[in-house]
Amino acid sequence: MATTELTDHELIATHRPTLDQALEAVRTRAYWSPHPEHAKAYGENGSLSVADGKAAFDALLGTRLDLGQPGTDDWVGGEVSPYGIELGVTYPHADVDVLLPAMRAGQAAWRDAGPELRAAVCLEILGRIGDRTHELAHAVMHTSGQAYLMAFQAGGPHAQDRGLEAVAYAYFEQVRTPATAEWTKPQGKRDPLVLTKEFKPVPRGIALLIGCNTFPTWNGYPGLFASLATGNAVLVKPHPRAVLPLALTVRIAREVLTEAGFDPNLVALAAERPGEGIARTLAVRPEIRIIDYTGSTAFGDWLEANARQAQVYTEKAGVNTVLVESTDDYRGMLANLAFSLSLYSGQMCTTPQNLLIPRDGITTNEGPKTYDEVVAGLAKAVDALLGDDTRANALLGAIVNPDVKARLEAAAGLGEVAFASREIAHPDFPEAVVRTPVIVKLDGAKPDDEAAYMSECFGPVSFAVAVDSAADAADLLRRTIREKGAMTVAAYTTSQDVERDVEEVCLEEAAQLSLNLTGGVYVNQTAAFSDFHGSGGNPAANAALCDGAFVANRFRVVEVRRQA
Amino acid sequence: MATTELTDHELIATHRPTLDQALEAVRTRAYWSPHPEHAKAYGENGSLSVADGKAAFDALLGTRLDLGQPGTDDWVGGEVSPYGIELGVTYPHADVDVLLPAMRAGQAAWRDAGPELRAAVCLEILGRIGDRTHELAHAVMHTSGQAYLMAFQAGGPHAQDRGLEAVAYAYFEQVRTPATAEWTKPQGKRDPLVLTKEFKPVPRGIALLIGCNTFPTWNGYPGLFASLATGNAVLVKPHPRAVLPLALTVRIAREVLTEAGFDPNLVALAAERPGEGIARTLAVRPEIRIIDYTGSTAFGDWLEANARQAQVYTEKAGVNTVLVESTDDYRGMLANLAFSLSLYSGQMCTTPQNLLIPRDGITTNEGPKTYDEVVAGLAKAVDALLGDDTRANALLGAIVNPDVKARLEAAAGLGEVAFASREIAHPDFPEAVVRTPVIVKLDGAKPDDEAAYMSECFGPVSFAVAVDSAADAADLLRRTIREKGAMTVAAYTTSQDVERDVEEVCLEEAAQLSLNLTGGVYVNQTAAFSDFHGSGGNPAANAALCDGAFVANRFRVVEVRRQA
Repeated sequence: MATTELTDHELIATHRPTLDQALEAVRTRAYWSPHPEHAKAYGENGSLSVADGKAAFDALLGTRLDLGQPGTDDWVGGEVSPYGIELGVTYPHADVDVLLPAMRAGQAAWRDAGPELRAAVCLEILGRIGDRTHELAHAVMHTSGQAYLMAFQAGGPHAQDRGLEAVAYAYFEQVRTPATAEWTKPQGKRDPLVLTKEFKPVPRGIALLIGCNTFPTWNGYPGLFASLATGNAVLVKPHPRAVLPLALTVRIAREVLTEAGFDPNLVALAAERPGEGIARTLAVRPEIRIIDYTGSTAFGDWLEANARQAQVYTEKAGVNTVLVESTDDYRGMLANLAFSLSLYSGQMCTTPQNLLIPRDGITTNEGPKTYDEVVAGLAKAVDALLGDDTRANALLGAIVNPDVKARLEAAAGLGEVAFASREIAHPDFPEAVVRTPVIVKLDGAKPDDEAAYMSECFGPVSFAVAVDSAADAADLLRRTIREKGAMTVAAYTTSQDVERDVEEVCLEEAAQLSLNLTGGVYVNQTAAFSDFHGSGGNPAANAALCDGAFVANRFRVVEVRRQA
Repeated sequence: MATTELTDHELIATHRPTLDQALEAVRTRAYWSPHPEHAKAYGENGSLSVADGKAAFDALLGTRLDLGQPGTDDWVGGEVSPYGIELGVTYPHADVDVLLPAMRAGQAAWRDAGPELRAAVCLEILGRIGDRTHELAHAVMHTSGQAYLMAFQAGGPHAQDRGLEAVAYAYFEQVRTPATAEWTKPQGKRDPLVLTKEFKPVPRGIALLIGCNTFPTWNGYPGLFASLATGNAVLVKPHPRAVLPLALTVRIAREVLTEAGFDPNLVALAAERPGEGIARTLAVRPEIRIIDYTGSTAFGDWLEANARQAQVYTEKAGVNTVLVESTDDYRGMLANLAFSLSLYSGQMCTTPQNLLIPRDGITTNEGPKTYDEVVAGLAKAVDALLGDDTRANALLGAIVNPDVKARLEAAAGLGEVAFASREIAHPDFPEAVVRTPVIVKLDGAKPDDEAAYMSECFGPVSFAVAVDSAADAADLLRRTIREKGAMTVAAYTTSQDVERDVEEVCLEEAAQLSLNLTGGVYVNQTAAFSDFHGSGGNPAANAALCDGAFVANRFRVVEVRRQA
């Protein structure tokens, strides 16, 4: 490729060490990340500083983001930040009958580039994204409603980690089979049979990424990079309220592909008009052979049932449980839980919803505590955490959309309110809807309460469910995972028997379990290269981030064998 | 496990070297097999000799094969050999409401055994199967109609190879993630965050193997062992005409599981009454979370659409093509093709059906050959191969069922017959239906002929399709793979351009390609540990034997993390 600005050799030389470290990290699952999570680590070596990131974001407002895509028949937009500002950015609207064929044009060259060069190009894209982390952080903040620090960390380095992790898995999976082999089968006294064999990973076709509102990059990058690294073109269909982070991502990907001598149309954006619902149309196009989706159970189930021509990876709703039985660090437990319930106003797929607490109370290092005392203690811990408005704003972020606000307000009517949600004013964004969580007492023995705690109530709503015993809690945990799915389970217990019972439930129902977290790690956070996000084995998600199954079926291996 | 006859240590010590060799073979894809394919290699070290295998099979005839399964409510059978004899063996018929719960009872212990011990138990099962290879060969012969040598090789060592390959892939996939990890995240001047993590592979549930008539063991073992090695219980539902080989397999598996201290009900048989069609009922049971199926496209499509609670792996029908453009070994090509068309009367999913030959002829090392000359040459080669009845019987085997015979007879009316099928008498089995293949000339430019060559005509029927050019052939090849699927593609060409074009079609449509085979390797044969069987990327099959994707989603990994 004489005309490329980035030579294949340079790309591989630059990124191979990082790829190797990622491969080693997923093998050991020790802590590792190449992406700094301190805001001030940015601003040198071509990366945007905090201030430059803000300026870059401000410069985008009110502009047309022209990606140079073929088949653009309109310009669409309309994002309004949960913090109140109108972004005013417009994006290309695609005539998919033009765009999809254009996306296929460069696929043979991308396929022939092979796994290592594809991985290097993906890492170059991630590197450029990393340089613009602070710009993307503002884009994530003003589409998801996350507070800035979280938008920066979760939308920046942590999302990039998950993208890199997917590239590492994809690379490994493709090179498990050698590119060539000689096969010699002895035939006794006759000459052996000899074949030369070539094995080539081939893409499935065009992948469709259907983005979500709350974590457009964190939930989007794994599928995007897994598909691209395995040779597929990727069409990115963002959530209509969270277009900008993925549009910027697509822009960077197209720039890098061009510089590396590949067709930029291997990655394209499909923005839509309000209410157009193009995901439903795109998902069943014959060109679309892979779909990654994060969002509602209803649409996830629809995709699984209808997009039969595609491999479909879904993350849907679930009901996350915390079982509280006993602890040797009562204050640590309450503080840890308070943080988990408050972070991003509980608008995480991993936020605990149901806290199962024995009605006869629990044992702690501070003596026995009644159910009421535990709930009051948790309320107090939340209040302490969020008592200061500046700190509350930095933790809570804004309510992402009116549906969440409505659910929050309705939750207070579901039972006795142990901690009432309160409004918090945002000094910079007066229109932002900022609310502390609500904690509602329910009774696991009352059939009327079951409808509440057995449904996902996405947002800052937690139910303190009184249960008869730890065994009763384990049964309810099992039923909840089996029927509703769970992205996370947590438990607090000093009893080996209870621990074993909870662990057995999680093993049998395939849910990820965090035990006795009382410090600075929270049940709703997972670390790339070490923790699995979801299990793929219960109704909350049909795939985990990230494992072999997440990448292995995004490509196929074609063998060409010749008589030697 | 004090009461086991086989200790865990013994099992692992015995089988770990073989597992390691299998892991190395799938990595290099060089020739390897631990299972001898010479009949006389058996008879020592506990394996049945040819004569003892025959005696063991004869002793089974007319008996009840009691597997000691719970929930047995009837005894069913009725297999009649394609060679004419009634087997008279009866098998347990299951009350699945009793059997399925019983199969779950031992799953936690099997899960907790871990990947290495499970692999060792699977290899012990395969070893015991290997010892009874000659008994199983008769069972395969008298259910599939394969000739003895093929029933022995394909149904014995080659099937065992594919089972072992699946165990190796399953083992590797499960141990990619370590059992434990310590995760330490620096926090600047503060203490680091430290977690200890456990990662455990957990099964999906009960796997259902739906066996086929023609290769009950070869097509059955990969799914059976992939599911068992990943911790699932396996319910084996054989084809009603080919129960015995899989029933014997289940019996051996149950014996080994018992001796190793596990619940024998982890593997069970579901035989059925004539016309009962239990696969349709079993496939949608909520306990069934994995299905492996080989058979018709109609039922495979039904499974994919309806068994939504399960991971479904299907091998369905396809139309296999040979593109003949030029050769530097004309006789070798004709002899190789003649063998491929004749082996097991073309009743292989990998047998070529459409031979695409330019109407203006081809170039060869014996000078140019017209279309008619090539077809006549092939007919002559088939005649030479099958002219001797003893040799013909040894190659062809028997027609497996009346449908195949009917298709064979109807094929003669589809076009000009270049080689007429003839009846061959079998000296030992006068009732066996033995037929040589039919070769019918068709014209790729005639719309009337298209219906014939664009449908799968399973059995000893080949179409010599006249095409306009090599480019025309490549187009037809592409259309055939895309619309009908293909397990195999072969091409004969000395032109680099044609080779590149055919290769590009196979890469884009995901089909496995054999080039210029003129010796002792045939397009319809694949070798475990080296060749992929199917690609999983075209309509003939949604999975390949065997790759990471075949095993990675049969289990999930559950993580338990604790604050250190």
